[in-house]
Amino acid sequence: MMDRITVVVDTREQEPYSFDSDKISAVRKALPAGDYSLVGLEERVAVERKSLTDFVSTVIRGRKRFHRELEKLSAYESACVVVECNFRDLVDGRYRSDAHPHALIGTVASIVVDFGVPVYFCSDRQAACRFVEEYLTRFHRRIARCQKEMRVTRRDSGEE
Amino acid sequence: MMDRITVVVDTREQEPYSFDSDKISAVRKALPAGDYSLVGLEERVAVERKSLTDFVSTVIRGRKRFHRELEKLSAYESACVVVECNFRDLVDGRYRSDAHPHALIGTVASIVVDFGVPVYFCSDRQAACRFVEEYLTRFHRRIARCQKEMRVTRRDSGEE
Repeated sequence: MMDRITVVVDTREQEPYSFDSDKISAVRKALPAGDYSLVGLEERVAVERKSLTDFVSTVIRGRKRFHRELEKLSAYESACVVVECNFRDLVDGRYRSDAHPHALIGTVASIVVDFGVPVYFCSDRQAACRFVEEYLTRFHRRIARCQKEMRVTRRDSGEE
Repeated sequence: MMDRITVVVDTREQEPYSFDSDKISAVRKALPAGDYSLVGLEERVAVERKSLTDFVSTVIRGRKRFHRELEKLSAYESACVVVECNFRDLVDGRYRSDAHPHALIGTVASIVVDFGVPVYFCSDRQAACRFVEEYLTRFHRRIARCQKEMRVTRRDSGEE
């Protein structure tokens, strides 16, 4: 049985996800980067969430601030951008902006390759919420496993 | 102006992408991991391509081999899995298999978090081809930039 995990939702996040309350409890707190993280691991894991509209306008108008955000995220053990649309929506220009699909696809590749921060296209808000739940749960489990292994190693080497 | 880049397509890849021939030429060669890479950078960058059907059956039946592949890819500077479907298709179980969506979403999170290899949902074959083109082009550009900077540094320090 896994314990319930505690997700930190950034205070600036305006419409936070409703996570499965059997598995996840949520607290609000200002995060150094991203919109979702885990208690105690705020500078090791984070998810930056974007609707398609946010993503396009950030990339076009808020470039500088977004780059600072990506630089912070790129230093994390695990961080990603989650976009609530399909990749096809970008390719076909299904957004309200004059931005050319080529430019947007180039930007996605740049975030992924130059910043080393993956961009996950998660179809819509509900599916993206499922992804974020699973992503943070999995990261929490990885950290818990590492901590357990370290305790076993310390005990076996007589440090405890 | 960027030079045309040369993509390596693994010999086992049965229906290779048709890349934009103005930008990319393709050669066939056995790759140590993945289906697409760049000439001379075969152990630094790679893309593993999967149709939705491939992805589901690999995850269910070919687990061990896939894990070996992911372990190799995780050691690369830049590597990813590209799936030719939307994330929604997984969430809604739009595939021919008894596999439960929960299990598949869990597997995606595991590939991403435990192996550190991003999984990009690229909607369909044509959009995925665009993504792979841009991903490899961007990686090539990054390497070219680094090499240029190294030459400048060497010249300035009088090594040349």
